[in-house]
Amino acid sequence: MGRASERRTVLRIDLESGAANGRTAVRRPDNLAAEEPLEIRVGPAGPGRRAPLAVTMRTPGDDLDLAIGFLLTEGVIRSTDDVRTAQLCAGTDTPNTYNVVDVVLADDVPAPATDPSRNFYTTSSCGVCGKASIDAIRTRSQYDVATDPVTVPARTLADLPDRLRAAQRGFDRTGGLHAAGLFTSDGELVVLREDVGRHNAVDKVIGWAVRERRLPLAGHLLLVSGRASFELTQKAWMAGIPLLAAVSAPSTLAAELATEAGMTLVGFLRGATMNVYAGDTRIKL
Amino acid sequence: MGRASERRTVLRIDLESGAANGRTAVRRPDNLAAEEPLEIRVGPAGPGRRAPLAVTMRTPGDDLDLAIGFLLTEGVIRSTDDVRTAQLCAGTDTPNTYNVVDVVLADDVPAPATDPSRNFYTTSSCGVCGKASIDAIRTRSQYDVATDPVTVPARTLADLPDRLRAAQRGFDRTGGLHAAGLFTSDGELVVLREDVGRHNAVDKVIGWAVRERRLPLAGHLLLVSGRASFELTQKAWMAGIPLLAAVSAPSTLAAELATEAGMTLVGFLRGATMNVYAGDTRIKL
Repeated sequence: MGRASERRTVLRIDLESGAANGRTAVRRPDNLAAEEPLEIRVGPAGPGRRAPLAVTMRTPGDDLDLAIGFLLTEGVIRSTDDVRTAQLCAGTDTPNTYNVVDVVLADDVPAPATDPSRNFYTTSSCGVCGKASIDAIRTRSQYDVATDPVTVPARTLADLPDRLRAAQRGFDRTGGLHAAGLFTSDGELVVLREDVGRHNAVDKVIGWAVRERRLPLAGHLLLVSGRASFELTQKAWMAGIPLLAAVSAPSTLAAELATEAGMTLVGFLRGATMNVYAGDTRIKL
Repeated sequence: MGRASERRTVLRIDLESGAANGRTAVRRPDNLAAEEPLEIRVGPAGPGRRAPLAVTMRTPGDDLDLAIGFLLTEGVIRSTDDVRTAQLCAGTDTPNTYNVVDVVLADDVPAPATDPSRNFYTTSSCGVCGKASIDAIRTRSQYDVATDPVTVPARTLADLPDRLRAAQRGFDRTGGLHAAGLFTSDGELVVLREDVGRHNAVDKVIGWAVRERRLPLAGHLLLVSGRASFELTQKAWMAGIPLLAAVSAPSTLAAELATEAGMTLVGFLRGATMNVYAGDTRIKL
């Protein structure tokens, strides 16, 4: 476990140029992005087993950060002080897989509801319309990103995709990993994480920052390699990040949530060109 | 509601060529892919409310297909006969949003467990390691795709991405929608669906096929615009689809599940070039 990629033999086909040695198809090794389930268990101290809260399909590695980031962005914890212990352990049924993170909450932190009508992930939206979902996030976020005075030159933003890409070692190997990078407003990369799931990459970044006691992440930028969904915008707000940028498109609800939060949302960030969907006063031309 | 995209005013920035009229930045309208939560409620007939089973963030449209496809690929129903009624309705708390699908199961169909430790989506994986997850899918799928004798010329596969792309009207507008297309082994497009979520696009395709009584989808190919995850491979197997192709990378667990199922898995399908990760005997050169 813990490997971010694995080699498999594949049949490589190239109908035009030939795959190798003049042959249309050859068998050759290929690196695949690793995907394994991670179960996050959470609850109070004591001899009883913690209750499973969520299972996410993730790329092994930085699993404690993933669990802590998930709990923070879902509003279960507010800082690392709310966590008594967090450990990666083997499941009782499947020893040696290390696909379980067991989190013991501090005594004064209420265990999260595991009411199935409020499943995690599936209800990053808590209401049944976008407006209710946005209202729910507002009540849960402990940070006001609207008042963050940070500004960023558009020229600085333009450089970020290349910096992110240059640091994506897992993508180089597999072509199959999303990335999330936390940058300062000067464009310096603070931390980068890769995962088969975009939301996991973001949770790993935020969980690292929680454990480093860096929240709120005022004055920072978060860049994601794919699209900007409602869920990713929610996670950025929960961590106090005032600017979320995505290489690809945002959704309507991501733009609406960013507007409500007073967050800056940049989409289609591809070097010199970009679209600003919310909070464009932070972008300096 | 029901719109697949919405217009918003954005600040378009082009630091090199200028956004318009010689200016670096201009405000202009842009089409965003719509994202709204959909709650799927399911249970027996009767006056009691059906229990919420899952909430998924989706692009409005084809919501009944999405719900039916989700229930089929998660193993709750086996055919359209297992559904007594399915209707799109307003939530009681949020009238007029039409973000709820209420599904009444046939009398002999057991209501799904809503045990929080087995959350849907988060536990497309039911075990806590990949092997257990694969075993769980095997016991739940009613179709044996390994014996499907279909073969497909690599040349036919090479044409599919362009055919999918040409049919993606929502992507043309927004640049932000994933697509899933069901094709015959001759490369004819049967049905295409777009969504902000890949898994939703696949559920909409499969739900359509369920309601048209076309399952198992023997002899068919499913092409997805992005990556091939464990979850998408599971959905294809549950619908009896023998070949899954993806424009981008597969994960390790997707390749392992396809191998176990006897399914063909093609990745990085980009015109004349492709990699075959499992079941390459179905590909004719």
